[in-house]
Amino acid sequence: MSDSETAIQSLYPDHFAQCYGCGRLNEHGYRLQTYWDGDETVTRFTPAAYHTAIPGFVYGGLLACIIDCHSTATGAAALYRAENRRLDDGGPAHRCVTGTLNVRYRRPTPLGPELIVRGRVVAVDGRRVTVASRIEVDDDIVVEGEAVVVEVPEDFGQT
Amino acid sequence: MSDSETAIQSLYPDHFAQCYGCGRLNEHGYRLQTYWDGDETVTRFTPAAYHTAIPGFVYGGLLACIIDCHSTATGAAALYRAENRRLDDGGPAHRCVTGTLNVRYRRPTPLGPELIVRGRVVAVDGRRVTVASRIEVDDDIVVEGEAVVVEVPEDFGQT
Repeated sequence: MSDSETAIQSLYPDHFAQCYGCGRLNEHGYRLQTYWDGDETVTRFTPAAYHTAIPGFVYGGLLACIIDCHSTATGAAALYRAENRRLDDGGPAHRCVTGTLNVRYRRPTPLGPELIVRGRVVAVDGRRVTVASRIEVDDDIVVEGEAVVVEVPEDFGQT
Repeated sequence: MSDSETAIQSLYPDHFAQCYGCGRLNEHGYRLQTYWDGDETVTRFTPAAYHTAIPGFVYGGLLACIIDCHSTATGAAALYRAENRRLDDGGPAHRCVTGTLNVRYRRPTPLGPELIVRGRVVAVDGRRVTVASRIEVDDDIVVEGEAVVVEVPEDFGQT
């Protein structure tokens, strides 16, 4: 598969695939999937009717969640590229967690249409990646985010 | 009831009580409740086992959600105080939405114990309130947040 056909979250080993936002093994969660799209990354998600804040609009916390997982996945993908690796090379997987998450709600996000999140890598500094993201609805930018994510060791959280 | 016994979200009229994070009428959501505690506000929440990121730790997106709703409630409560009103005076309710949300994860948040969110009002500028919050676990600050929230008109979202 090409890099653009590989969900970054699909590379996480099982013990890193439990995330409520993007873990393929978390049956209660959002199971977000993030892909390369040229030099950007993209995540798509259609909220449920109950993911509301004020009726008619998407809950802002959910939008923060989406940017959060989109950013950690983008950070992991950026570390592959920094090593000139393909996502599907079978080598050790990268997994990042969030250090800081800043979200700006430009306007209320209409509830119903698919949300398209696009991100770009602003900087890679060792294990630390800065990611800028935006959420689009019908080609309009409704939310902007910036996150600093940090790679965790392969045995993080295992006792 | 005293101000400290009134959940700020209990004051929202029904059409503003649907929020996935804190709406008392959203049966799928977290139903967060926020109270005055002296000059601070407090929200308590115990995550479910599936609200995880890396096993053993709370999902960062959920922590952002909690700070988000805690901040909008604190903003509403601050507007009552700015008018020298008691929460339970029966007058028109305040309801805020989030403009910006900044979250700093100081360290991984252990999954299991109750999370205690405390916030304080940094500034009230007309309809705009700045709220600083922190999430504590066992008296240790694990997350810090700052949000700017803005009051919406009473008929916002109604068609």
